[in-house]
Amino acid sequence: MKTIGILGGGQLGQMLGLAAIPLGIKCIFYEQAVDPCAASAGKVHKNLNKFIEEADVFTYEFENIPPNITDTPGIKGKLFPPLKPLKIAANRCLEKALFRKLGIPIVEWLPLTANKPLKSGDAKINLDADALYQTMSSPDSPLIIKTTTMGYDGKGQIIVRSHKDLPKATRTLNKMLPSMQTNASPIDSGSSSIAAAPFIAEQMVKFSRELSIISARDRKGNIAHYPITENHHENGILYSSYAPASITPAHQRQLQEWMEKLLKHLSYVGILTLEVFDTSAGLLANEMAPRVHNSGHWTLEGSQTSQFENHIRAVAGLPLGSTAARGYSKMFNLVGRTEPRLTRISDAHLHLYSKQPRKGRKLGHITYTADSQNQLKRKIAHMTRHKSFYS
Amino acid sequence: MKTIGILGGGQLGQMLGLAAIPLGIKCIFYEQAVDPCAASAGKVHKNLNKFIEEADVFTYEFENIPPNITDTPGIKGKLFPPLKPLKIAANRCLEKALFRKLGIPIVEWLPLTANKPLKSGDAKINLDADALYQTMSSPDSPLIIKTTTMGYDGKGQIIVRSHKDLPKATRTLNKMLPSMQTNASPIDSGSSSIAAAPFIAEQMVKFSRELSIISARDRKGNIAHYPITENHHENGILYSSYAPASITPAHQRQLQEWMEKLLKHLSYVGILTLEVFDTSAGLLANEMAPRVHNSGHWTLEGSQTSQFENHIRAVAGLPLGSTAARGYSKMFNLVGRTEPRLTRISDAHLHLYSKQPRKGRKLGHITYTADSQNQLKRKIAHMTRHKSFYS
Repeated sequence: MKTIGILGGGQLGQMLGLAAIPLGIKCIFYEQAVDPCAASAGKVHKNLNKFIEEADVFTYEFENIPPNITDTPGIKGKLFPPLKPLKIAANRCLEKALFRKLGIPIVEWLPLTANKPLKSGDAKINLDADALYQTMSSPDSPLIIKTTTMGYDGKGQIIVRSHKDLPKATRTLNKMLPSMQTNASPIDSGSSSIAAAPFIAEQMVKFSRELSIISARDRKGNIAHYPITENHHENGILYSSYAPASITPAHQRQLQEWMEKLLKHLSYVGILTLEVFDTSAGLLANEMAPRVHNSGHWTLEGSQTSQFENHIRAVAGLPLGSTAARGYSKMFNLVGRTEPRLTRISDAHLHLYSKQPRKGRKLGHITYTADSQNQLKRKIAHMTRHKSFYS
Repeated sequence: MKTIGILGGGQLGQMLGLAAIPLGIKCIFYEQAVDPCAASAGKVHKNLNKFIEEADVFTYEFENIPPNITDTPGIKGKLFPPLKPLKIAANRCLEKALFRKLGIPIVEWLPLTANKPLKSGDAKINLDADALYQTMSSPDSPLIIKTTTMGYDGKGQIIVRSHKDLPKATRTLNKMLPSMQTNASPIDSGSSSIAAAPFIAEQMVKFSRELSIISARDRKGNIAHYPITENHHENGILYSSYAPASITPAHQRQLQEWMEKLLKHLSYVGILTLEVFDTSAGLLANEMAPRVHNSGHWTLEGSQTSQFENHIRAVAGLPLGSTAARGYSKMFNLVGRTEPRLTRISDAHLHLYSKQPRKGRKLGHITYTADSQNQLKRKIAHMTRHKSFYS
């Protein structure tokens, strides 16, 4: 039996492990956390060498990967996807640069560099109004300044609505700088000057909705796309995903073309996710995630082969399973708390991650499926009337 | 977190364990076999006391249960379903008697008793033509003689086509008697005289097809029925199952009424399966299985809640999930061998049990699902043209 070593042991690892078992494949996990979710799906190792010894091939489900992992004997050449997509996705500037290089439309953006290397300790950011506004095509629209390498779920973001906001924003960024020097992710050290920019300014665009496309590429280069997902966030955390989203054939084709460019350019193996804004000016890529993704949890019941099984298939060198949708699906994240009445919903699929409840923590999800959009609407009416499982 | 202790660690245990994890429930297994399937879904115990200590409630997935298990402190009152259905299902005479008592139509049958108690060592069977033929309503149809307590998949069965076959059949049965005295299942010792009959004679009926109905009953007494399944056997082993079977509303109602009688009479909790013959004279019950059943494996993808999840839900004291079908499904057992090309079928759901291949052994199954019957037919054409996964 083939064994896949998964770097990370959270709920994504758990669902990958559970998807592997019916294929006759065993997963083991490298994870330092106490009592990790994935323990229910396979053995958890805290010792990297023992973990490496026991697995035939490797993949990852989190961002927090030991920096020189691919040089480690025993992993070299056996990590799928490779580490490059992770390094790029972890750095908003590198990511934007890649999208631009591949001709994938994105919002206007600008790396914000310091006057000295961050490690010198006395680096400063000077927000120059000219540099910020004159390079943007719509100089009146607000900007959002984000950290280049850290921050997620809306943390560490500053909105600049006009020139007047610049002095305050400058002070805030410079206050953040010292902590960034110590927390800076090691995987982007030594990269290009763009990669070393501590902040990035992006034009804020109005979008009607956020979409995501999830695609799989096997080791032979075959690609399969899942139907497009429509996502809704609350307080910066994914609240619900609906699929297949209503989308024009032209947009569908466009998204698939972008994914094919990315997957081929990155020599990708496994599941890759791309988040996209649907704007009046067309689709704009936002960011990519080099792994199975929360917005693809609906595929467990809503597609012929789940994103988890297809990731396992790709990593194990097996051909991909069908990504066709089975009816219509809507997934709701269970954030912060779960409750016994969840198990009383008879027509939905419950997935608990066995994590301790904590405000803002993803504890599970619940997916409704139906043969028609109307049937699905009726089923989920009680979920949308009051955001009952969100705290 | 609640822990369910499962007596048995085969593929049924594995699939029960995998269904429990997303509900936040842990399964542990009591199993003596080396490297059992269920090990991928939870901890396996060889020591009964340690197993009992670690679980909150108990269920079983095999027939080979320690005889006085329900008297064991720690299990008493915590075993779902209770042991009685298993004792009855393990004895064809008790089973037929129960069906008759509940008004569930069955074939004509007769217990074949020995002239002395089996344990006396010199017991003999005398096949009396009068007793055999005059009690049957169609004295010309052939009979099938089966062991009362052992035998499955067609083993240990003798067909008697006319009076002329009786002397030879008598010799065969008497040759089998001594081994039955040592192998006799302990759970039926001390039962009524019908239960002690070593053999049973049943009228062989012509049936157009074999159906099965799978139903669930929760701890509060709520009952849910899965759509009826149509089953095809090869060499006495289930080859394929199709659901929902085409069936008249009257027959559907009839089967559900039988199940409700059985479930209530037995104070049942969990999944119960009833195999039925569809004959020109109507439906006739064949036998029941007090557990999740091979003919219900299609529910993993073909229904809203699988038989495994609903068994776990019932045993754990949770309400049942919807048993509604999702489109049409056909399951094929993988018997005797598996092969790499199974993973190349992109539009089916593969389930391997990680068992060593052996002739006649169930190694896994594969399920096709589709929105329409015609679409399903097209998908499985390559499976039905040649019985490719059967050896």
